[in-house]
Amino acid sequence: MSDRPFILVTNDDGIHARGLRELVEVMQFFGEIVVISSEISMSGKSCAITVDQPLRAIPVEKIHGVPTYKCNGTPVDAVKLSFNSLFDRKPDYVVSGINHGTNSSISVIYSGTMGAAIEGSLHGVPSVGFSLDDYSSEADFSKAKIIVAKVFQSVLDNGLPPFTCLNVNVPQGKPKGIKVCRQAHGKWVEEFEKRIDPHGREYHWLSGYFKNFEIDSTETDMYALENKYASVVPVTVDMTCYKTLAEIQNWKF
Amino acid sequence: MSDRPFILVTNDDGIHARGLRELVEVMQFFGEIVVISSEISMSGKSCAITVDQPLRAIPVEKIHGVPTYKCNGTPVDAVKLSFNSLFDRKPDYVVSGINHGTNSSISVIYSGTMGAAIEGSLHGVPSVGFSLDDYSSEADFSKAKIIVAKVFQSVLDNGLPPFTCLNVNVPQGKPKGIKVCRQAHGKWVEEFEKRIDPHGREYHWLSGYFKNFEIDSTETDMYALENKYASVVPVTVDMTCYKTLAEIQNWKF
Repeated sequence: MSDRPFILVTNDDGIHARGLRELVEVMQFFGEIVVISSEISMSGKSCAITVDQPLRAIPVEKIHGVPTYKCNGTPVDAVKLSFNSLFDRKPDYVVSGINHGTNSSISVIYSGTMGAAIEGSLHGVPSVGFSLDDYSSEADFSKAKIIVAKVFQSVLDNGLPPFTCLNVNVPQGKPKGIKVCRQAHGKWVEEFEKRIDPHGREYHWLSGYFKNFEIDSTETDMYALENKYASVVPVTVDMTCYKTLAEIQNWKF
Repeated sequence: MSDRPFILVTNDDGIHARGLRELVEVMQFFGEIVVISSEISMSGKSCAITVDQPLRAIPVEKIHGVPTYKCNGTPVDAVKLSFNSLFDRKPDYVVSGINHGTNSSISVIYSGTMGAAIEGSLHGVPSVGFSLDDYSSEADFSKAKIIVAKVFQSVLDNGLPPFTCLNVNVPQGKPKGIKVCRQAHGKWVEEFEKRIDPHGREYHWLSGYFKNFEIDSTETDMYALENKYASVVPVTVDMTCYKTLAEIQNWKF
């Protein structure tokens, strides 16, 4: 057994995504790597788990020479499996990404990339999700990889509190630096496109745009990204709204 | 257009689930109802969205006389569709459930029932997820329906802060009352069962048990349920860990 940390690398864009390969390349500097991902895209799978189907994890062609498994489940399933019955050793760290497209603000709740990082933190190990603000298959990951290395080195040096992971987003181009931020208050404004199929039946395609509710705040991940900084948001698994808890404590039922 | 509130009723157990019918029956006292759900179970779908498939919502047989649609997407998809292109009127409230099985503590992050309620809150309307601690198809929902009525009446009377929903869990038997709580700190300890299929290939079934990390705390939803109270936890969409944010603000990258 190696003394180097054992790092689980995963993503939600699937095993063939360029971002995954780029992440493996960086992480090899930090430890012994294993990769697990899905054959198909798991974008938008959030923290979904598979409760009604058996899971399989099958060794496939190595990525950059490291053991690689394809899993038929969601990103969270892949992490769960990795901590339980797949390897002789439990991962010391989980990193997820590099996602093609950002997961800032409210996107954290929909993101499969962040689902994997959140699940890693639930298994008690420091976990980070990385995303780049570029959907293009030609995206330039070179700057994002430097951010990955810097942030992961900080995690190695400082650790992370239990049950907390990081949501790291990198702007296009050369980042001016790295900002620790909070999640911007915003939402996706959905515009479904209604179409008619060849059999005359209606169907709907999800599209939409992001609306930032606090465009002037300088403390948010959206502000950092818009100003060409990489954003680092610590993410908790405790979804209790404590402010509301105090307000509704005296409701009479 | 009716003056009564327009209430969207959904769930993650699918359109044939008893809990959905029971919820519709209660909610009819409060307003004009529309039901949207899936044909198959969406348990464990979290806040997952469908990005790579078109969505369909098709009118099906009414439940307790109210318009009912089946949707091929996740609970969050169903809510998004309902607020966008499906009805002439936007829902004033979203209720989800009654789930067969609890969604207390960390289960909130995996739950499709809560995914729908969270999405409702993102659309700016008071939203509640209801779950009963009984997986049996013979479960007695009569007490849970009284809790639903009491909690929803409080929501009608008091409103809810924007972007906050409620996670309501009901114990088996007769609840002693209703407690406003925070999410217990705990996790699922997964034990995958490894099996070999008829072709000699390995597969894994997810199973496991819940571990409460703060068994002595009286403020949590787990404590309420174990002591036969219904639990009400306000849930936020802001996943920032503010405590960690302060700690890592000075990291040198």
